Amino acid sequence: MSAELIEYAAASDRVRAVYDDIMKTRGTDWVNNFWKGLAHHPPTLERVWRDVKEVMQPGALDPLVKELVYIAVSVTNNCRYCIASHTASARNKGMSEQQFAELLAVVGLANETNRLVIGYDVPVDERFGGKSPGA
Amino acid sequence: MSAELIEYAAASDRVRAVYDDIMKTRGTDWVNNFWKGLAHHPPTLERVWRDVKEVMQPGALDPLVKELVYIAVSVTNNCRYCIASHTASARNKGMSEQQFAELLAVVGLANETNRLVIGYDVPVDERFGGKSPGA
Amino acid sequence: MSAELIEYAAASDRVRAVYDDIMKTRGTDWVNNFWKGLAHHPPTLERVWRDVKEVMQPGALDPLVKELVYIAVSVTNNCRYCIASHTASARNKGMSEQQFAELLAVVGLANETNRLVIGYDVPVDERFGGKSPGA
Amino acid sequence: MSAELIEYAAASDRVRAVYDDIMKTRGTDWVNNFWKGLAHHPPTLERVWRDVKEVMQPGALDPLVKELVYIAVSVTNNCRYCIASHTASARNKGMSEQQFAELLAVVGLANETNRLVIGYDVPVDERFGGKSPGA
Amino acid sequence: MSAELIEYAAASDRVRAVYDDIMKTRGTDWVNNFWKGLAHHPPTLERVWRDVKEVMQPGALDPLVKELVYIAVSVTNNCRYCIASHTASARNKGMSEQQFAELLAVVGLANETNRLVIGYDVPVDERFGGKSPGA
Amino acid sequence: MSAELIEYAAASDRVRAVYDDIMKTRGTDWVNNFWKGLAHHPPTLERVWRDVKEVMQPGALDPLVKELVYIAVSVTNNCRYCIASHTASARNKGMSEQQFAELLAVVGLANETNRLVIGYDVPVDERFGGKSPGA
Repeated sequence: MSAELIEYAAASDRVRAVYDDIMKTRGTDWVNNFWKGLAHHPPTLERVWRDVKEVMQPGALDPLVKELVYIAVSVTNNCRYCIASHTASARNKGMSEQQFAELLAVVGLANETNRLVIGYDVPVDERFGGKSPGA
Repeated sequence: MSAELIEYAAASDRVRAVYDDIMKTRGTDWVNNFWKGLAHHPPTLERVWRDVKEVMQPGALDPLVKELVYIAVSVTNNCRYCIASHTASARNKGMSEQQFAELLAVVGLANETNRLVIGYDVPVDERFGGKSPGA
Repeated sequence: MSAELIEYAAASDRVRAVYDDIMKTRGTDWVNNFWKGLAHHPPTLERVWRDVKEVMQPGALDPLVKELVYIAVSVTNNCRYCIASHTASARNKGMSEQQFAELLAVVGLANETNRLVIGYDVPVDERFGGKSPGA
Repeated sequence: MSAELIEYAAASDRVRAVYDDIMKTRGTDWVNNFWKGLAHHPPTLERVWRDVKEVMQPGALDPLVKELVYIAVSVTNNCRYCIASHTASARNKGMSEQQFAELLAVVGLANETNRLVIGYDVPVDERFGGKSPGA
Repeated sequence: MSAELIEYAAASDRVRAVYDDIMKTRGTDWVNNFWKGLAHHPPTLERVWRDVKEVMQPGALDPLVKELVYIAVSVTNNCRYCIASHTASARNKGMSEQQFAELLAVVGLANETNRLVIGYDVPVDERFGGKSPGA
Repeated sequence: MSAELIEYAAASDRVRAVYDDIMKTRGTDWVNNFWKGLAHHPPTLERVWRDVKEVMQPGALDPLVKELVYIAVSVTNNCRYCIASHTASARNKGMSEQQFAELLAVVGLANETNRLVIGYDVPVDERFGGKSPGA
C-alpha cells in the first residue's frame, strides 16, 4: 500500500535536482525514503525540501534542539517513520541515550498534564495573561 | 464549568505541604492555577508535583530545552493553559522571542511532514532500522 | 462564530419530533445545545440521536461506565463542551468527585504511557498476540 | 528500530528490583515488554511503575473500569501496543467480548460527536456552567 | 492481536444480511475486512453500515469529495487501514494521482497552520465572528 | 496571552510586502489576524504565505474542495480559529449550508470509524495492498 519510492536512476531531472541538493546540503551520498515518496509530486518535493532546509538550519535554536522538538511532535502524533528518521538525525548531531530518555520523559509528562489541565478546565492565571476572575 | 480553585487559605495541611514545596523549589511566593485545580485530589497533586520536579530538573537536557519540548507537545495537543504557563516558564529561563518563533516553526513543520509521511505510507529506511524490501 | 441554536419554538416538525423524543427518553423538559446545533441538518440530528440512544443505553456496560468512557475520550480530544455535558450526565448517574478525580488520573496516565510506548517503539509481547522475535 | 528490550538476566540490580515488584504485585512470573523498554532509563522505570501502581489500584473506581478507560484513551490515540496490553489486562479482570464491543462503540461515538460539537462550535449550556448568552 | 475476521460462510443470518446489502449497494461480490471485524457485534455492524450508507451517498457534496474528506481525517488521525481503504474507494470514483498529491499537500499544510494558530493564540477576527477587541 | 497583532501601520517594509501581496492576491483590502500573528517572525510569514499561495491555488482539485479538506483537518484537530477562517473562505467560494452540514457529517463519521478500525485492529485487505494472511 506504500507509495512506490522513486529512486535516483528513475527520477526526472526536476526530482534529481532536489536529491542532489539534499545530498550536498547534508554531506551524504544517499537520500532517505521520505523524499523518494514525495517525489511523486515534484512541487511538494521542492516546497517541503525548501521549508525543511530553512526551518531546520542553525538559528536562535541549535539544530540538535530542533531535532528534539521534531521528535517530541512525532511521538505525540505517533508517526513511526518520523521518530526513526529524526532520532537518527539527532544521534548524528550528538544526542546521547540519556538525552533521548529525558526527552521521552518530558513528552510523556506533558501529554499527561495537558489532559489534567483540560479535564479540570483550569483557567489561565492572570500572570500568564488570563482574565481577572472578576472581569 | 472550571473546577473551583483551592486557595492556600482554604487548603488542608496535606495540600499546603505541596504548595509550600512548590514555592520553595521555585523560589516564588505564589502557586499557579494548575496546582489549585489538582488540589481537589491530594494524591494526584502529590504525585504529579513529584513527577514534575523529577522530570523537569536539570539533567542531560537543560531545563530550557525541557520547557521547549513541553511547549511543542502542548501546541500539538492544543492545550491553551499549558502553552501559556510553559511559555512563561521558558521566558523566565531565558527563551527569546526569536527562539519562540523558531520553536513554533519547527512544531508546525513537524506536524505537516508527519502527515505527508503517513499519507504516502513511507516505509522506514533500512539505515533507520526498517526491514529490507526483500525480506 | 457559533452556529445559531434552533430553539423548539422555531423548529420544524421534523426537528421537534427529535426534541420531543430526547425529552421523553431522558425524562426532562429541556434539550441541551448540542442538539440545537445539529438541528441545522435534520438528517444528522435524527441519525446521531438514534445512535446515541442505541449506544448509550444500559447493556453489558452500565450507563455510568459509558459516561466515564465518553469523558475519557473527550478529555483526550480536548472537547470542552463534551466534557461539560458528559460530566453533568455522569454526575446525574451517580459519579462522585472521587470517581471523577480517579478517572482523570487514569486518562492522564494513559496519555503519558501511550507516548512512552510509541517513543521506545515497544514490540507487542507474544502473549498479547505479537509476533515471535525469531519470526 | 525498536529499543532493545532489557531482559531480567541482563538487568542491573536497580532494574531487577522493579521487575521483582511488578511480578509480586501482579502475582505473575513474567514482565511485559513495556517495562523492558523503559528499563533503558531506570528513573523513568521506577517513576512510571510507582505511578501505575498508585493510579490503577482499586479505589472509588474498580480496576476493570480503569482498564476500560485506559483502552478508550489508547484507541483514541492509536497506540497498538497499549490496546493489546490493556485489553489483555481487562480480560484478566473479567471483561467480556460484549463489554469490549460496547466499549469500542462508545469510543467511536464520542470521537464522532466531539467533532460535531467542534464543527458547529456549540456553546456550553448555562446548566452545564456556560455563560449566559446575554453576558 | 487483530480480531478474527468473520467470513460469510461462518456468519449468522443477521450478519449475512448486512454483508448482502453491502455487496448489493456497492455492486461488488466481496466485503472488506472492516465489516468482518465489526461483525463481532452485530448491532454495531448494522448501525455503522446504515450510517455509512446515509452519510456517504451523493448529496450536496459528491461522493468523491466525501472520500477526499475521509482520507484527510484518516491521515490526520494516522489510521493506516482507513487511508488504504478510502484511497481505493476514491480511485474507484475517479481520483487521479495528481488529485491525491494535492489532497495530501493540503492536509499537511492545514496540520502545520493549525499549530501556528494555536501557538500564537491568534484571536478570531471580528469579520469571522470573533469578539471586538474592546469588548 | 495572545501574541500582539502587528497592524499594517506598525509593520516593517518586509512585513508590508507580504500584506500587500495577500491583499492583491485575494482582491481584498484587509489582512486577517493569522498573518498579523505570524508577522512577529518575518521568515515564517513569508514562507507560510508562499506555501499557502502555492498549495491552495486551483489545480487538479478546485479551490472549494481544498477549503473543505482544510476544514476537515481543522475540525479533527480542534482549531477554532482555523475553522472560522476557512469556513468563511469556503462560503466565499460558494459552500452552501447543506454542503457544510454534509462535510461535518463525513468528518464525524470518519473520526468514529477510524477508532473502530484501530480498536478491532483490522488488517489491511490484500486488495488494498495488505499482506496475504498466509505470508
